[in-house]
Amino acid sequence: MFRSVCILGPGLLGASLMQALRERGLAERLTTWSRRAETRLKCEGKPWCDAVYPTALEAVDGADLIVICLPVEHIVPTLEGIRSAIKPGCLVTDVGSTKSLICRHGQAIMPEGVDFIGSHPMVGSEKTGPENGYAELFEGGACFVTPLVDTPQAVIEKTIRLWKAVGMEVGSASPEKHDEIVAHISHLPHFLASALCSYLATQNNDWQNFAGAGLRDTTRIASGDPALWKSIASQNREEILRALDGFEEEIQRFRSALHNEKWFEIINLLERGKTYRDRLRMSK
Amino acid sequence: MFRSVCILGPGLLGASLMQALRERGLAERLTTWSRRAETRLKCEGKPWCDAVYPTALEAVDGADLIVICLPVEHIVPTLEGIRSAIKPGCLVTDVGSTKSLICRHGQAIMPEGVDFIGSHPMVGSEKTGPENGYAELFEGGACFVTPLVDTPQAVIEKTIRLWKAVGMEVGSASPEKHDEIVAHISHLPHFLASALCSYLATQNNDWQNFAGAGLRDTTRIASGDPALWKSIASQNREEILRALDGFEEEIQRFRSALHNEKWFEIINLLERGKTYRDRLRMSK
Repeated sequence: MFRSVCILGPGLLGASLMQALRERGLAERLTTWSRRAETRLKCEGKPWCDAVYPTALEAVDGADLIVICLPVEHIVPTLEGIRSAIKPGCLVTDVGSTKSLICRHGQAIMPEGVDFIGSHPMVGSEKTGPENGYAELFEGGACFVTPLVDTPQAVIEKTIRLWKAVGMEVGSASPEKHDEIVAHISHLPHFLASALCSYLATQNNDWQNFAGAGLRDTTRIASGDPALWKSIASQNREEILRALDGFEEEIQRFRSALHNEKWFEIINLLERGKTYRDRLRMSK
Repeated sequence: MFRSVCILGPGLLGASLMQALRERGLAERLTTWSRRAETRLKCEGKPWCDAVYPTALEAVDGADLIVICLPVEHIVPTLEGIRSAIKPGCLVTDVGSTKSLICRHGQAIMPEGVDFIGSHPMVGSEKTGPENGYAELFEGGACFVTPLVDTPQAVIEKTIRLWKAVGMEVGSASPEKHDEIVAHISHLPHFLASALCSYLATQNNDWQNFAGAGLRDTTRIASGDPALWKSIASQNREEILRALDGFEEEIQRFRSALHNEKWFEIINLLERGKTYRDRLRMSK
């Protein structure tokens, strides 16, 4: 599928992608670069990694696919750093959780004959680093590709084929629509879980000895990396604020029904929530 | 440990308790009653059930341990119905998720020589019914016993031994303290998950095709039975309102930091949440 693929940022997602591409025979050559010497060392000599470079500029040389798997705030600066080394016809994409800022800037700085298109594979884990990566991470997961209006159809299709080839279900949306959707189904749940934990941290901490599976499942994602989620918050600030507003109205409806002992309304809210949850697709 | 045990309400929890008592040889005879003929039929002839009765009054006859495993709003009415048949020295407890109302009324209506003491084993599932029960449900889980100030020490100790015998870690708290604690660590997470789902249900429902493991875990408990959770809400209304108030202040702190782009404060909130979550005991 690709002759030479460069993954910038071999963390959990990047290293998993390298393993998936190798195992499925989708890339002849796989190169990588990490900001951290420690991470570069972890990739050396792995069967899914043909070469590790000390700079991004060297790593992308000759690549016909570049996937940037860095934290969202590093994506555009990294694109600026490598632009002179990207060969014409190369497909450049990323895996960032926010898309509007990245896609507008990303496309604008690409050299002649090179297209940048955003991707967002919705898989991951609260674990990090290449040592936690595995080839099957993507299987059954959902993935966005986020073309601009003038992105060539061939580029869109090639990107969709890439993510389908590692086992994902792929949908297409504008970067702005993507950001609205993930603000609701990913960022809002994350910040609610974090706020719940940070609130409970202000209460008697012995209470947690009585916590059951409910609290544990509800808050699992609050273990995510604060720096990473701060970046996501900053890149998708307006949509997250809008989703928070909508959620707060819902919580107020619930609060007011409880306060006024309107049990029929409580049942209705719980039923609507249950119906939504029961329909949530149960694949990965 | 007990000669004759009666479990009223052989749902997921009640049937699991019967199985755990039988497998561990803790009860010579196990009897049960369910409001529903359908559930009574499911218990007939099971190795963990010696007799199924059509009325609660018949089922408790001769029991030296009665455990009421019914929805919270049925517990006190059921106690009233069986009180004339409870023999002196019998230990009577329940497994309801709220305790103040149940324990005050429960103790008040017991006949001479009989003690009611509240229990709350914090295990369960969004699944229901005796067909989903299993003996190991309690293992490693946390359990409250909630004595009143005048509950005899021997009754408290006997109840603690019961739950320890089926594998639980047991703590003691007043019914009021219990209700405050579970409002925070169980009821608040539940209603947040429900409100998140009932809010997302008002948005474009195609969005859920992109939902990842984060949303699924965060909202799993929203699949719980609305009637059951309405009863819990009504029995623990004031404490839940107080917990909601505290949580809303936290969400406002987060919202205002995001609105004003105070990233250092965002990081602090996320860090505090992560620290709390990472410490949550990882046993069942």
